[in-house]
Amino acid sequence: MVNQVQRVEDTWRTCSKSDSSGASNSGCESSKESSRSSTPVLDTDRTDRLRDKMRRRTESGDHWFSLEFFPPRTASGAVNLISRFDRMGSGGPLFIDVTWHPAGDPGSDKETSSMMIASTAVNYCGLESILHLTCCNQTKEKITGYLSKAKRLGLKNIMALRGDPMGADWEEEEAGFNYATDLVKHIRCEFDDYFDICVAGYPTGHPEAESYDEDLRHLKEKVDAGADFIITQLFFRADTFLKFVRDCRAIGITCPILPGIFPIQGYQSLRQLVKLSKLEVPEEIMQVIEPIKDNDAAIRNYGIEQAVGMCRVLLESGEVPGLHFYTLNREVATMEVLRQLGLWIEDPRRTLPWAVSAHPKRKVEDVRPIFWASRPKSYIYRTQDWDDFPNGRWGNSSSPAFGELNDYYLFYLKSKSSKDALLKMWGEELTSEQSVYEVFTSYITAQPNVAGHKVMCLPWNDDPLAPETNLLKDELDKVNRRGVLTINSQPSINGKPSSDPIVGWGPPGGYVFQKAYLEFFTSSENVTALLKVLKKYEPRVNYHIVNVHGQNTTNAHDMQPNAVTWGIFPGREIVQPTVVDPVSFLYWKDEAFALWIEQWAKLYEDESPSRMIIKYIHDNYFLVNLVDNDFPLDNCLWQVIDDMFELLDNPPEEQPAEALRQDCVDAQIW
Amino acid sequence: MVNQVQRVEDTWRTCSKSDSSGASNSGCESSKESSRSSTPVLDTDRTDRLRDKMRRRTESGDHWFSLEFFPPRTASGAVNLISRFDRMGSGGPLFIDVTWHPAGDPGSDKETSSMMIASTAVNYCGLESILHLTCCNQTKEKITGYLSKAKRLGLKNIMALRGDPMGADWEEEEAGFNYATDLVKHIRCEFDDYFDICVAGYPTGHPEAESYDEDLRHLKEKVDAGADFIITQLFFRADTFLKFVRDCRAIGITCPILPGIFPIQGYQSLRQLVKLSKLEVPEEIMQVIEPIKDNDAAIRNYGIEQAVGMCRVLLESGEVPGLHFYTLNREVATMEVLRQLGLWIEDPRRTLPWAVSAHPKRKVEDVRPIFWASRPKSYIYRTQDWDDFPNGRWGNSSSPAFGELNDYYLFYLKSKSSKDALLKMWGEELTSEQSVYEVFTSYITAQPNVAGHKVMCLPWNDDPLAPETNLLKDELDKVNRRGVLTINSQPSINGKPSSDPIVGWGPPGGYVFQKAYLEFFTSSENVTALLKVLKKYEPRVNYHIVNVHGQNTTNAHDMQPNAVTWGIFPGREIVQPTVVDPVSFLYWKDEAFALWIEQWAKLYEDESPSRMIIKYIHDNYFLVNLVDNDFPLDNCLWQVIDDMFELLDNPPEEQPAEALRQDCVDAQIW
Repeated sequence: MVNQVQRVEDTWRTCSKSDSSGASNSGCESSKESSRSSTPVLDTDRTDRLRDKMRRRTESGDHWFSLEFFPPRTASGAVNLISRFDRMGSGGPLFIDVTWHPAGDPGSDKETSSMMIASTAVNYCGLESILHLTCCNQTKEKITGYLSKAKRLGLKNIMALRGDPMGADWEEEEAGFNYATDLVKHIRCEFDDYFDICVAGYPTGHPEAESYDEDLRHLKEKVDAGADFIITQLFFRADTFLKFVRDCRAIGITCPILPGIFPIQGYQSLRQLVKLSKLEVPEEIMQVIEPIKDNDAAIRNYGIEQAVGMCRVLLESGEVPGLHFYTLNREVATMEVLRQLGLWIEDPRRTLPWAVSAHPKRKVEDVRPIFWASRPKSYIYRTQDWDDFPNGRWGNSSSPAFGELNDYYLFYLKSKSSKDALLKMWGEELTSEQSVYEVFTSYITAQPNVAGHKVMCLPWNDDPLAPETNLLKDELDKVNRRGVLTINSQPSINGKPSSDPIVGWGPPGGYVFQKAYLEFFTSSENVTALLKVLKKYEPRVNYHIVNVHGQNTTNAHDMQPNAVTWGIFPGREIVQPTVVDPVSFLYWKDEAFALWIEQWAKLYEDESPSRMIIKYIHDNYFLVNLVDNDFPLDNCLWQVIDDMFELLDNPPEEQPAEALRQDCVDAQIW
Repeated sequence: MVNQVQRVEDTWRTCSKSDSSGASNSGCESSKESSRSSTPVLDTDRTDRLRDKMRRRTESGDHWFSLEFFPPRTASGAVNLISRFDRMGSGGPLFIDVTWHPAGDPGSDKETSSMMIASTAVNYCGLESILHLTCCNQTKEKITGYLSKAKRLGLKNIMALRGDPMGADWEEEEAGFNYATDLVKHIRCEFDDYFDICVAGYPTGHPEAESYDEDLRHLKEKVDAGADFIITQLFFRADTFLKFVRDCRAIGITCPILPGIFPIQGYQSLRQLVKLSKLEVPEEIMQVIEPIKDNDAAIRNYGIEQAVGMCRVLLESGEVPGLHFYTLNREVATMEVLRQLGLWIEDPRRTLPWAVSAHPKRKVEDVRPIFWASRPKSYIYRTQDWDDFPNGRWGNSSSPAFGELNDYYLFYLKSKSSKDALLKMWGEELTSEQSVYEVFTSYITAQPNVAGHKVMCLPWNDDPLAPETNLLKDELDKVNRRGVLTINSQPSINGKPSSDPIVGWGPPGGYVFQKAYLEFFTSSENVTALLKVLKKYEPRVNYHIVNVHGQNTTNAHDMQPNAVTWGIFPGREIVQPTVVDPVSFLYWKDEAFALWIEQWAKLYEDESPSRMIIKYIHDNYFLVNLVDNDFPLDNCLWQVIDDMFELLDNPPEEQPAEALRQDCVDAQIW
């Protein structure tokens, strides 16, 4: 549990302990001077650095882990890897790192490049990330170009490596990069202290080094040149690493040294890795593995047991603050080792109700419109060019220039499901609006659709229903059946502890609150009745109703944002991470309507009845959002919808159609 | 009640109706274009203008009133007038105006000048104010200088008048100011649309005008030159005014025309005013007054009755959106007329928990440190040079450069009590620290002190206990008796309606919250025990403890502000108007300690025992603030103090003195 608390605190802390104690204990003579000089100079950039996070975790005796991945070979591999980042990120790694793949055009904008994968991890998955970089056979200009690009993309950490020489006839170049030390120096020379730099350590000595001692001296040079910490090559015995650390300390290497852990996951992968790294597998391990080499499960189970045992020794030695895992882009073995070690966070505490991006310029961001709750990567993409991010409040000035709406084709936003899978879920053939309603209902209830397939996602939600939304399941089921097609909702919350497993977020000891929210598509007939009904709920319920053409009606007359999620914490200002912002809603509207066409209609042939049905909904339905401002009372939004159905089912007899129409004119919806 | 709601809404509104409806009903063709173009351009400057407030109130059929004052002759008169502004401001005038007193150096920095009085009303009393300005016998340079100064001080409205010529031989000057029209033109020429301009109307014609019609034409000229509205000279019959309005409308004057109401308050003042304004008092009024001319009370009662009757006719005519009162700097008659008309707000709704300044550059300000809660004018003074004011959150960057601490001598901060009165309240002679405790206890309980005098103020509170603090009276009494000398406190509040008569603030339909807060001076012995006790209350209670020398200890390790008052409202972002900010606290500390010396010790002779006692407290006591973060639970701060007393009364036997001392070393207080 220490880990959970610490992880949240890391993100919340904006002033290091040494800063604050200095400020709070200034013993200046003049009281005036002392109060002036105690103003803390908060360099949040510095406290947000990976090396500082490591230092704080080490100081507090709190163990951590990190995860290494290599870039994928294919586009669909990239989509899968990003999903894996999201899943494995939830376990709470201190950082991940992405290897440099010289053969894969690693600095390019290709979706499989090292640069793009690391950038996506930082920007869209919110993971502190290290980008590997090899310098062998590269010009200084090329390397500087890579580093500039990495900085521009929000990457803050580099693993500086020599890399394998291309071809056997490699010789040292006079002015070129011959060793990782040259690269470390170059980074420090060209980018000053911007990057945190990691270098590689070899517990049994680099295979090409003259000797173990010679290799240690090289490592010392790398650290002296400006490296912040060391990650070691894999090894098979705890003693190997612990001796290595002692030897490093003996020659004056004082920075953190993280052991590289390789859970054996299969016979072939072990052989391959051993060949590449020129390591010897200890006899006692080979003796176990050889007899079971055709039994993958047995080898993996042994690998887990072996890694857990070794990690326990390392952690108990007191020399190891954190463990670095070579995942081979697989989840099971590493997660199991971490679970057995108690390092995997099963129930991650959320800093904010949404996943925070790790790009340094978004560091202060703590308010977002609720509309993108299920599409946070789209929101990040569409605001990537903003210079400032809302902090504390959304305000009126923070809603300019959302980026263009072309993100359906970005690999990190692609649906995890294939076209075939989508057709199975959303219907091979649609026959009516009602058949669309049934898709929504299947998604909400997690019951199979008419064809017997579970609906695991919708164009507006790439994942199954969130646990919080599950609280509303019965009500959502009921209204979707009748064509109130919900795409976003949250219940009201009146001061639940911030540690609540379902709705909690933020540091411990706080209280979280929500106003009930409901967002849905529905027909213009329903909207006509809804507007009549909403008059009874003034000013308790705020609404925005818009169609694809931008016809918009609202009772938020002053067009202010409405905070719908907020938290109160010990010793903090109020945090209000989500708002319903009228201006952003009109940008979101474009995206929400476009998803009908881009993700759903286009599954079907041009002019096919199925496509025409989706197109009809796109052209004629309204997007509605409702907020119940009275958060301490029972959510009234379901009653609003019930009243709407009641009015539709039993229209008042004395009211001629013309009068109903007049109401709509009044409400400026026609 | 319409008035109350409207008044609060006025201040909260940041976007005019026409802006928002334009944005929410944009019917552009392309949906993309429509969402982009609907971003509202919020010119908050324009919506905050007096003429716009008038227009909105008029449109909503909501009657208002305004109050006219003249500058005082003496410094103590100025102190009294500012107190009167605070009292009469609470009744909810739309604006006040301050006459220009050419003989009183009206544009100077003297505390009795028109300029200073109007500036104080705006900046320190938060009143929308109009400064009168006469142009007769003035150079353009001089007038421009006055206007520039007024603008710099935050004044936004000018009543443009010709003024009385000095001496009988006045003649028109070729290039000078001969009429108010010249002044209106000059203001518009030199300051564009910055000022709202008011001009005078004469319901019976200006005494110097050739004819009533000629005078109406002059009035038309003034309006055409750029005046925004008209306030009339006083009159005695509703018909006089209503005919005047009809005549104005007939020649094309369309701006608001406010009737000047003069409640007759005494025989002499009526005679004097009539002489100055060359008006005739109608026969029916003289017939009533003459027989009772020596009975002031009878005349005032008649004046009230007469004014109420006339105002009723005016308001019922539908021609009168608001009433302007010539107060003669007196309170009773005008307030009584307004009460009878139902225009006086008995229970004013507060926009924020503290009084908002009316200076335009403070318009966005909605967060302040709690420390200055009882000295808001000092806070405004010390932050007057800030360029930006915290909006939404206090942040770390908003606490630089508090102004110098020399405000004890500013007239608008002077105690309303004389030195004699203060000595009676705070003790002609102090004999011990205990006798100081008794002064605090008398203040808290509103019981007479040993000399039989009620203690109506303390150096840190110039007014009797606030209703909210009264809720804590019993507890405060108990702790002050034992030397926990409280100077600021608030109870915890967990979601009371924003309309609550005692703790409510902000627009209707919201909920307000508070964390319990307690601030006090106490001896170092008490602090030693307190620090031991506070360990039990981690992390629930945040504390800051500091002495005059700046020795400071706190458990707010990251030096962040702690929001202690906040409100949730329909369709709004969260508002958190007060914070406990660690950095500001060290500035406040200087002021809080200095008040012991400046306001209390200096009442006594140098070296006198009384002065030495206050000086001892100043030099040795600590200033402590405590926040109970767990606002949904019962306030634990009284328990903290009880525990402290318990520890002092029954020190644990096994604990030697040295160990207690060690605790203090740990807590870094020695």
